[in-house]
Amino acid sequence: MISELGENEARALLQRHSLGRLGVCERIPDDEHNRPYVVPVNYWYDDNSVYVHSLPGRKLRALQANPHGCLQVDEIEDAYRWRSALAFGLYEEVTDAAERDRVLTELFKRLPHLSPVESRMKKGLDETIVFRLRLTSVTGVFEKW
Amino acid sequence: MISELGENEARALLQRHSLGRLGVCERIPDDEHNRPYVVPVNYWYDDNSVYVHSLPGRKLRALQANPHGCLQVDEIEDAYRWRSALAFGLYEEVTDAAERDRVLTELFKRLPHLSPVESRMKKGLDETIVFRLRLTSVTGVFEKW
Repeated sequence: MISELGENEARALLQRHSLGRLGVCERIPDDEHNRPYVVPVNYWYDDNSVYVHSLPGRKLRALQANPHGCLQVDEIEDAYRWRSALAFGLYEEVTDAAERDRVLTELFKRLPHLSPVESRMKKGLDETIVFRLRLTSVTGVFEKW
Repeated sequence: MISELGENEARALLQRHSLGRLGVCERIPDDEHNRPYVVPVNYWYDDNSVYVHSLPGRKLRALQANPHGCLQVDEIEDAYRWRSALAFGLYEEVTDAAERDRVLTELFKRLPHLSPVESRMKKGLDETIVFRLRLTSVTGVFEKW
């Protein structure tokens, strides 16, 4: 009852949304098994990349050690009617100042309630890391009874 | 602006819900980097385990090769008001018939719209794998402006 979404449909789903769950694999010294770590993120999908901003922390350390990321975005009506897109890609920090500004502007456009917190957000921006997952594949699945 | 949820609060969040996103790490032959894979799942949280049922497929293959799973469950009001619990644990298939029935019964109780699809679901049950993540830690974070 679960079928594959075509790549175009999966990309359209990514395009329609700005909230997803990012999965990364944490490397553990002397352990062949990485450990999964999943966090909700706001993203912007553009030109075969997904862009995310984040304060330094656990997901960034994980991606710096193992650059593979998986962004999962879904539309869930109920337990038997849902679709989920998966964007797999490789971590790259956006360091170019103009590109970083462009990405932050696009990310902020997509966030609700910007005005009341804008001034507070901007204070934190120096520390903020902007990164992309450069996508290597986009797939998806759906269920419909 | 992002703070840690206490363990009790994170467990209460798990208890309140039945839909989460499960992250696993796929092992790739001859590659030190595992690959993250994230899927929405319905779960039941009980007695320091989360229980999930699934048809055979990619997430089960991943968990059989690397048993570490991470279930992420959130309550998102908007981009600046959200909380997210993370349940980390180790994969174990539930093979005991009585235990498997008990888990499936509890999982189905939590699913909406059961009656119209019940008969169709039951047809698929022989193939269904029931598993738990035996939890090794439960943490969480929240943001509030």
